[in-house]
Amino acid sequence: MSAVAVTPDALSSLVEDALRRRLSAGIASAEAYGPDFLRLWQLTAETALGGKLVRPRLLLDAFDAFHGEAAPTPSTAHAAVELAATVELLHYGFLLHDDVLDGDTVRRGRPNLIGALAERPSSSTIGIPEADARHWGRTGAVLMGDLLLTSSVMGFARADVPADMRIRLLDLLESVILETVVGEHTDVGFSDGVIVPELPRILAMTTRKTAAYSFELPLRAAAILANATPESEAGIAAIGRHLGLAYQLQDDLLSAFGDADSHGKDPHSDLREGKETAIIAYARMTSVWPSIELRFGTADLSAADAEGIRDRLRECGAEAFVENLVAEELADARQLLTSPDSPLPRGLRDVLLALAARIDGRRS
Amino acid sequence: MSAVAVTPDALSSLVEDALRRRLSAGIASAEAYGPDFLRLWQLTAETALGGKLVRPRLLLDAFDAFHGEAAPTPSTAHAAVELAATVELLHYGFLLHDDVLDGDTVRRGRPNLIGALAERPSSSTIGIPEADARHWGRTGAVLMGDLLLTSSVMGFARADVPADMRIRLLDLLESVILETVVGEHTDVGFSDGVIVPELPRILAMTTRKTAAYSFELPLRAAAILANATPESEAGIAAIGRHLGLAYQLQDDLLSAFGDADSHGKDPHSDLREGKETAIIAYARMTSVWPSIELRFGTADLSAADAEGIRDRLRECGAEAFVENLVAEELADARQLLTSPDSPLPRGLRDVLLALAARIDGRRS
Repeated sequence: MSAVAVTPDALSSLVEDALRRRLSAGIASAEAYGPDFLRLWQLTAETALGGKLVRPRLLLDAFDAFHGEAAPTPSTAHAAVELAATVELLHYGFLLHDDVLDGDTVRRGRPNLIGALAERPSSSTIGIPEADARHWGRTGAVLMGDLLLTSSVMGFARADVPADMRIRLLDLLESVILETVVGEHTDVGFSDGVIVPELPRILAMTTRKTAAYSFELPLRAAAILANATPESEAGIAAIGRHLGLAYQLQDDLLSAFGDADSHGKDPHSDLREGKETAIIAYARMTSVWPSIELRFGTADLSAADAEGIRDRLRECGAEAFVENLVAEELADARQLLTSPDSPLPRGLRDVLLALAARIDGRRS
Repeated sequence: MSAVAVTPDALSSLVEDALRRRLSAGIASAEAYGPDFLRLWQLTAETALGGKLVRPRLLLDAFDAFHGEAAPTPSTAHAAVELAATVELLHYGFLLHDDVLDGDTVRRGRPNLIGALAERPSSSTIGIPEADARHWGRTGAVLMGDLLLTSSVMGFARADVPADMRIRLLDLLESVILETVVGEHTDVGFSDGVIVPELPRILAMTTRKTAAYSFELPLRAAAILANATPESEAGIAAIGRHLGLAYQLQDDLLSAFGDADSHGKDPHSDLREGKETAIIAYARMTSVWPSIELRFGTADLSAADAEGIRDRLRECGAEAFVENLVAEELADARQLLTSPDSPLPRGLRDVLLALAARIDGRRS
């Protein structure tokens, strides 16, 4: 018997319902405050839904697997679904502030919240100068990010679980938010030229900015909700960090070398924005770098230039180097998962081995 | 006997100690993350301390007065001091995001966090272009604001009080953060030209942006901690909103007409920034507005131009109109405080009447 839901579809639908409830509550609370604030919430709800819900599903899959055959109490199962939805709201809040800091107005080929607000700033028909419209878009994203961050901590603070479990959950969330902020700070430090983008720093940044809240948080939250031992929680945290780093490095590889038609991203945006990835950090240490540096991070990078950079990143061994890093991180995760000393239940290990296989085989 | 502290000095020092502990914990947590993140926390601690701590003092004064002769439990008194410090951290977090949205780099005549980071972006000696330095300053303020907001909600979530009291405190904090965000959103909407700055909207914005977290939050938190009845909590909330609006309107008057030498602010910054205040909203409705509009909100406003605008704001009756609004808000607060039906204890009413008198007589 599965603890929370029987099928993956049912699982997603529980989380989606919880998410919709939270977003609807936001919209309802906005109605008292005039059409412009209401519109901010409506656009937020539109842009926040439609993701793949990987983080909430990871939390609930792990929660189920921790329980195995034993059913959790209904109130704990309910708390798991609520926290799964909360993790997705936190993710969206982080995305909003990330987009503000990066100046991005597009995500997945469509206007993000900033872009949507800037395109049509007002609930009325007032026309305003473009610079003001862009500022209004950024303002909406900063303030909605603040509300979602608040709502995330509130979600953990209100979890209907025993007091000691809630304290463990709050400690986890606080440390993960700190890690994410540090990762974001370092990432911007690279692009602003304040922090030198050396490879070890890039790997640490990637782990902090992505692995902490996208993998470690849902897995450890599941462990705490299932009343797992501190050893199990530490074990799953380490595995989460390996998987999270592998996932993000694989994402960087796809952005640089993948087939744009299948992964659906702007094929050269990382190169055009001068994103400091492990691929670039490796290339910097080789003799081809001077030929890449010239055009790397230029807004008007042509498709031909980008193809040229891709070829050189392959030639110099950067692609192979990062592919190897991915393989190493996955191997570390698998070793921890298959070790006879692992404190994790069998079913959970299968869930995470399957996740490792999906990251490994990811082509889009 | 006073519940928390005997003298105002001792009171401030308890809050200052709690604040210093929180900031030191931030610095300590940053040490693991390299010199640039550490520097962000050090600059935050430097710029966050040194305020007048009006919000924490209001909370503790009210907490004391709610108890009267009866001593609170040591753990409740401890929670009151911790929440008082938390309210100050929340205030500083809001200021950071407010400065980001307004593009401000100076506060009280000194570089704010953004300005300090932009002036010397790096812990090392790397020189970077000015636009990147400014972006780095804004980045620090966005991310530190996120951490302080997180820390504020965590502070309420961890209050060592009975569960039902903690839920009341969390509900209060959540509603106040929402009010503040709405107020900020409307204020930026005025300056971006998205929302028409009509007088009732300006008064609602002012109440939401300032009165909610600066007055209503500390007063209601004190009521909840003292286990006051819902009637008392509602009563003190209404008084807090009147006092908070009076306080901010008085602040607008001082900025526009006060003696710059005694209040220490840039004497014409509100006029130069085109800040939409109740003074301006009134002037807009009079025949002098066309003569003000020409230079209002221009960055290169001369001292002579500013003096001219001040004179016209007086002539048209805007100063007298807003002075009258202040008087009305204070009269409403006093009426609620002196009503024989008031559920508030005598000592608390004296504290708030004294506060009303200070707002009334404020000249700097």
